[in-house]
Amino acid sequence: MTIENQSNSRAKITLVGAGPGDAELITLKGVKALSKADVVLYDALVNEELLELAPAESVKVYVGKRSGDHSFSQDAINKLMVDYAMNYGHVVRLKGGDPFVFGRGYEELEYAAMHNIPAEVVPGISSSIGVPGLQHIPVTHRGLSESFWVVTGTTSSGAISADLMQAAKTNATVVVLMGVHKLAEIVSLYKSEEKHNLPVALIQNGTAKNEKVVVGTVDTIVQLAAENGISSPALIVLGNVVSLHPQYQLSETLHGIG
Amino acid sequence: MTIENQSNSRAKITLVGAGPGDAELITLKGVKALSKADVVLYDALVNEELLELAPAESVKVYVGKRSGDHSFSQDAINKLMVDYAMNYGHVVRLKGGDPFVFGRGYEELEYAAMHNIPAEVVPGISSSIGVPGLQHIPVTHRGLSESFWVVTGTTSSGAISADLMQAAKTNATVVVLMGVHKLAEIVSLYKSEEKHNLPVALIQNGTAKNEKVVVGTVDTIVQLAAENGISSPALIVLGNVVSLHPQYQLSETLHGIG
Repeated sequence: MTIENQSNSRAKITLVGAGPGDAELITLKGVKALSKADVVLYDALVNEELLELAPAESVKVYVGKRSGDHSFSQDAINKLMVDYAMNYGHVVRLKGGDPFVFGRGYEELEYAAMHNIPAEVVPGISSSIGVPGLQHIPVTHRGLSESFWVVTGTTSSGAISADLMQAAKTNATVVVLMGVHKLAEIVSLYKSEEKHNLPVALIQNGTAKNEKVVVGTVDTIVQLAAENGISSPALIVLGNVVSLHPQYQLSETLHGIG
Repeated sequence: MTIENQSNSRAKITLVGAGPGDAELITLKGVKALSKADVVLYDALVNEELLELAPAESVKVYVGKRSGDHSFSQDAINKLMVDYAMNYGHVVRLKGGDPFVFGRGYEELEYAAMHNIPAEVVPGISSSIGVPGLQHIPVTHRGLSESFWVVTGTTSSGAISADLMQAAKTNATVVVLMGVHKLAEIVSLYKSEEKHNLPVALIQNGTAKNEKVVVGTVDTIVQLAAENGISSPALIVLGNVVSLHPQYQLSETLHGIG
């Protein structure tokens, strides 16, 4: 057996969801995968404290791309991932949130399969559920919401997702990820549905020390976002469950509900 | 200070999401909470291996209720939780999946607040995302799905959720939790929308050793469920992302696609 074959036979990829930011929100399974990593490829939204869970001698590679910054394309990440697996062995692909919630994780699985490299998935806490939850906003609650719908604000075309237009018509709690730059457009969809007083929350840097929360309604949220300087990364929660947040009452008092 | 006051001042409740079943899918934060528990109140769908993470001397109380079995009502659980906190100190309320995904977690928070007991939330891996993900079914995937919608199959009235009727009309990946007993009804909603060939997966006992997966289409899934003896607890995934599952091709070959 040649050395090349030996290294190939150890090639393996594990997609690990790092969770929304707080390093303690990774799973035990994710910790175990990291502890056996030869290489860690990690994204911009991943807490770098997690890198300490990988062996000291492992290779750590930042492949961050934030929305709008395409210095690392998905193709480049796929190739790096497979090259490292071929040459070093076990690659942990550490991704913000869950690998399959707008994480393009399946593209990485497909690429690994094309190169006959075994791949595993370790789910992560999706910010869509965990970030509102840590703010005591439940995505579902009896009498207020029987479902929740998670939509991206950033489609590959750059346009607003057609799913958001449908979502605005329903009773689902709607969580929009990567959509704060489209807030005015999203809010106008809800206004067309006469949902002026529907509660809305914006949560920036969820679970991090610099987390910022703004709560209002469809009619007030754009102004509140501007006043409070909300910017990416942030998520939007639209639905009656937002009325359960303690700030909601205060916001109503200060700004009225239209 | 009386003894009663001392014990009250230590009263505290932490709602912890245990994840979908595999004990390693709990978060580090969840492990930390368990390690400091005086009492653990746990549900039917929680992996009992997790109880070993709590101190040996802590009190472990099973408060399981499966759908249809109301031996422990939510009221009874709320009261137990607060009584234990008052008398023992730190109660970890260990819940399957995430506490706020049909987990009635907010009702428990409210009850704690009514009794002035501080409460924290530790999110968990929701089976809605993690269980399909571990089967390599991504809830979102470029070109196939820009969003996912999570709906309960079991509403408080017993009827099918009105949200499901809306969901069947959309392009979202739809994940139905606790809905396998309503499979025929759910499928007929999709048939009314002429979505006969839409791929559907059923995953029973997700992440457990006895996990069972069946993949088909709106037209074939009811028969496949019967042939394979699928029963609760199981989730339903409806959407084009299911076509990415390796069993899907096989299912097409065996049963046709309508």
